[in-house]
Amino acid sequence: MEYKQRTVTCGELQISDVGRKVVLNGWVHRNRNHGGIHFINLRDRYGITQIVISDTASEEVQNTAASLHAEYCIAVEGIVQARPDSMVNQEMATGEIEVEASSLQILSTCEPVPFMVDEESDAKEDTRLRYRFLDLRSFGMQKRIKLRHDFVRAIREFLSQRDFYEIETPTLLKSTPEGARDFLVPSRLYPGKFYALPQSPQLLKQILMVSGFDKYFQIARCYRDEDARGDRQLEFTQLDMEMSFVSRDDVLLIIEQLFHYVFKKVMNYETEEHFTRLSWYDAVNTYGVDKPDLRYDLPLRDFNELALLSTFSTFKDVISNGGCVKVIKAPKTDLVAYSRKYITSLEEAAKVYKAKGLAWMKVNDEGHLDGGVSKFFKDVEDKVLQYTDAQPGEMLLLVADEWKTVCASLGAVRIKLAKDLQLIDPDKFAFCWIIDFPLFEFNEERGHWEAAHHMFSMPQSQYLDTLESDPGSVKGDLYDLVLNGYEVASGSIRIHDIELQKRIFRICNIPDEVSQQRFGFLLNAFKYGPPPHGGIAPGIDRMVMIMAGETSIKEVIAFPKNTAAVSPMDDSPSYVDKEQLDELHLIIKEEPKKDK
Amino acid sequence: MEYKQRTVTCGELQISDVGRKVVLNGWVHRNRNHGGIHFINLRDRYGITQIVISDTASEEVQNTAASLHAEYCIAVEGIVQARPDSMVNQEMATGEIEVEASSLQILSTCEPVPFMVDEESDAKEDTRLRYRFLDLRSFGMQKRIKLRHDFVRAIREFLSQRDFYEIETPTLLKSTPEGARDFLVPSRLYPGKFYALPQSPQLLKQILMVSGFDKYFQIARCYRDEDARGDRQLEFTQLDMEMSFVSRDDVLLIIEQLFHYVFKKVMNYETEEHFTRLSWYDAVNTYGVDKPDLRYDLPLRDFNELALLSTFSTFKDVISNGGCVKVIKAPKTDLVAYSRKYITSLEEAAKVYKAKGLAWMKVNDEGHLDGGVSKFFKDVEDKVLQYTDAQPGEMLLLVADEWKTVCASLGAVRIKLAKDLQLIDPDKFAFCWIIDFPLFEFNEERGHWEAAHHMFSMPQSQYLDTLESDPGSVKGDLYDLVLNGYEVASGSIRIHDIELQKRIFRICNIPDEVSQQRFGFLLNAFKYGPPPHGGIAPGIDRMVMIMAGETSIKEVIAFPKNTAAVSPMDDSPSYVDKEQLDELHLIIKEEPKKDK
Repeated sequence: MEYKQRTVTCGELQISDVGRKVVLNGWVHRNRNHGGIHFINLRDRYGITQIVISDTASEEVQNTAASLHAEYCIAVEGIVQARPDSMVNQEMATGEIEVEASSLQILSTCEPVPFMVDEESDAKEDTRLRYRFLDLRSFGMQKRIKLRHDFVRAIREFLSQRDFYEIETPTLLKSTPEGARDFLVPSRLYPGKFYALPQSPQLLKQILMVSGFDKYFQIARCYRDEDARGDRQLEFTQLDMEMSFVSRDDVLLIIEQLFHYVFKKVMNYETEEHFTRLSWYDAVNTYGVDKPDLRYDLPLRDFNELALLSTFSTFKDVISNGGCVKVIKAPKTDLVAYSRKYITSLEEAAKVYKAKGLAWMKVNDEGHLDGGVSKFFKDVEDKVLQYTDAQPGEMLLLVADEWKTVCASLGAVRIKLAKDLQLIDPDKFAFCWIIDFPLFEFNEERGHWEAAHHMFSMPQSQYLDTLESDPGSVKGDLYDLVLNGYEVASGSIRIHDIELQKRIFRICNIPDEVSQQRFGFLLNAFKYGPPPHGGIAPGIDRMVMIMAGETSIKEVIAFPKNTAAVSPMDDSPSYVDKEQLDELHLIIKEEPKKDK
Repeated sequence: MEYKQRTVTCGELQISDVGRKVVLNGWVHRNRNHGGIHFINLRDRYGITQIVISDTASEEVQNTAASLHAEYCIAVEGIVQARPDSMVNQEMATGEIEVEASSLQILSTCEPVPFMVDEESDAKEDTRLRYRFLDLRSFGMQKRIKLRHDFVRAIREFLSQRDFYEIETPTLLKSTPEGARDFLVPSRLYPGKFYALPQSPQLLKQILMVSGFDKYFQIARCYRDEDARGDRQLEFTQLDMEMSFVSRDDVLLIIEQLFHYVFKKVMNYETEEHFTRLSWYDAVNTYGVDKPDLRYDLPLRDFNELALLSTFSTFKDVISNGGCVKVIKAPKTDLVAYSRKYITSLEEAAKVYKAKGLAWMKVNDEGHLDGGVSKFFKDVEDKVLQYTDAQPGEMLLLVADEWKTVCASLGAVRIKLAKDLQLIDPDKFAFCWIIDFPLFEFNEERGHWEAAHHMFSMPQSQYLDTLESDPGSVKGDLYDLVLNGYEVASGSIRIHDIELQKRIFRICNIPDEVSQQRFGFLLNAFKYGPPPHGGIAPGIDRMVMIMAGETSIKEVIAFPKNTAAVSPMDDSPSYVDKEQLDELHLIIKEEPKKDK
């Protein structure tokens, strides 16, 4: 196909270009006809340029202009001219000029579009995904995909400068299911055998440390065949990192430096030099969650002492039964009224996390406790006001229950308050480290201990003697990185000792013969001089989502699956030919219903 | 585990560091005991440092030193000291110093190794792969993995500077089998349905062009479930690229600039500014293959005219039946004798490509044609000598047959001569472009035309009217990049017109309903203003292999499969739990033999 190839893009022409003969290629973004004069906004990745077809243009050009519709792909040749003063658009990079077309060629046509590119649209997610090629033309998607490119590029730059090697690891390997399910890939050559897609390169990056690579990273595709819940994808991308001969603090430091560099480079944003560190206990105790959003404070505070001084037997009973009472102070606001209805909405948030109720007291204009459970605190009003520093218009919200329940439910109240009261600075990026995690948690359903994080994390040395006798108290050399209330990375110092690794497996109810069968290749490598090592794995999708100010990772992935794990664009997953199944030695168990 | 963390690596200590107290962490590379003094070569990724444990060291340190074996991982503290003059090793970066150990800690032990790291070893491939973590510790593997890192890094740098975005495409998508087999991934949520791993992101990168991304690249993992033949892997990596609004020459130019930049940066090697371009016909006609090694010349030359003047009826008959005769001139050499035995070995190479025989004539010391078929050329000796410029000690090798057979068989002779006569400069990188490929080739077995490259490549415009009537003569806008005789990249200008795309499908025996079912999502995208576009996809594994001077891509992949598509390290593929199969609604057709 012969056509005039562009000499400039749609984002670059300036007033200094007036008089130049140029060719542009791009898409018809908008077109209008004002009294016989056609104005076309021609769009490409670089911007928009206004094309004018005046009534003095050739008949052919005028006819072509009249036949254009949205999203036609065209080639335009013409002369750059200054816009009349009244038409100058200062908000547009090319807003001082327009191109008077002398030739116009349609490179391809476009059927009527299901939604206009770049217009606010109420198109449903599946429509957007089915026509993803149109959706991706919007400046929003283009900008986010570029942000992702810039983000990953800056990460690679930084780590390469610091002597990390990026090393590709295989994605067809052995199935080592634990927790999330493996995707299996049937082998054609070996009937009944399967490869598996990795949930992460965890074992391989540890083996790379055994191999002496010292500092490794990879922007790695990972796979989890989990039920669709929330904002998950079957495949996702993480920055996988591992280092030899390091302590926890070495890993934390390199990540702080990494994201300081990257946020400066990509967003021109100065992160703190060092990120706040909270122990897992302090995070939960103070913010109710192990991934606190530190863009605002609103801490949970202990209220046991004052509760015991009150006349409120409900609170006192909880405490005497080993529970506790905590308080959160809702600041004065014009955005919501602290009405019975609003308090009920807060209580509902608390009840999701099993609180039996949410107690409250307001401070009235006279500075006295008022309403709710205030009557029980009449005698200790001064102490309450002093302890909480509560001012007129503020409100105290209290939950009494087991510690875990109190924290979780008041943590939910904290988050709801921050949203409703607009306490969140959307331009802020608040990182923090959560450290000193419990190594194990008890799985009530299965009746045994499990790794809270994963089974390859090192217990802190002071617990080595009591691993088996008191798993619940063991803290690990684990660390999570939290950004704006999202867990964005998880890591640990790893075990590199076979015997210790086997003890962990056994505590997690994996006997030696099973661990040998599943993880034998790691255990085998550990026989050959493994170095002490540790690492971390920030999630790329989620971090870019946060940086872009979005709330779904689908907004930063070019071709995501929908929440039903389907790609509406290509209709995968789909049925395959019987021949293909025969070659793989497979039979489908239940004949699939063809009307599905 | 408490240990002394390194303050320096094993590659950095210099004479100027003498007197410093340092800690090193690394592996016991070699250890010797000379009259009670232990010398340990301590190795890490950065180099080797000699550790000395003298007989004045503490008993504990001496005992530890005596207990060390190869590949133990240790921490050493000590003082840097100058080596005695007689012990200085100029070939070692740290050869002027040694570290006198004051403390020595074993971080992990190592079982007896199946092969010594870095020693020439006749360990079989499967042993190397089973103990890949040891194999990867060798400086050779470390260097090649670093080369790969540097290569890919330089590619990303260059393309990012040129406004390409790196965009990740999904690896779980629709199965679109053609040629190579798709790996299938059973869906757990949708019984009987499958995702497929992509053979390349071909369709998605074309859709990214429809999406307006203009310039795209990705270092992309690709999958082909082909039978193991030669040096193939189930998964491999390519630099996937695509650009909108470009001509063939735009793509060729950016690749020339890319590899000029990359080879300079990574190897300090100056590639030619522009690569030689050969049409497919000229490449085959002159070098016998469509991927000629241009590090040496040795061209095939037409010999029809002289053959017709000879008295050799065999040659004349071939020509009169539409065949041809070609000659290659073997230069004078000391490396092999042009004996009957050697000529027979050349003939065997020719016969692999179906030549019925290899005719020959030598030029003797008197400058006359001698031996072989020379008797038939007595009358035209002068003309033969003049045409071929054959000198004493040189030899003419001839094949008469169909053009294809002549080219292929003499091409094989050319390659064997170059190897045997050491005509190849191992330090040279000779790129060339092969252009003007046939678009279709006839599949005798299946009885229909097929795409020679792939079905999305644009026919050259002069053939648009005769696609169906004469597919065999159609040339496409295709291009291969060849480096040192290997095809390292393949690309084309793509079709972006639905009707033309369907014509190609039909010629390749794919009726509309089948193409719609398989490629409907691309055809659908083409309804919405697709831009003209084209691209290319250099193979990363193969290019790094060539740059590293290796002959197998396994040497530049951290964890490759063996030729039987198995990973001896983790034993994948492997059997999985019945539970896992049940969840995927799968039954294995034949009960696998458990003793396999």
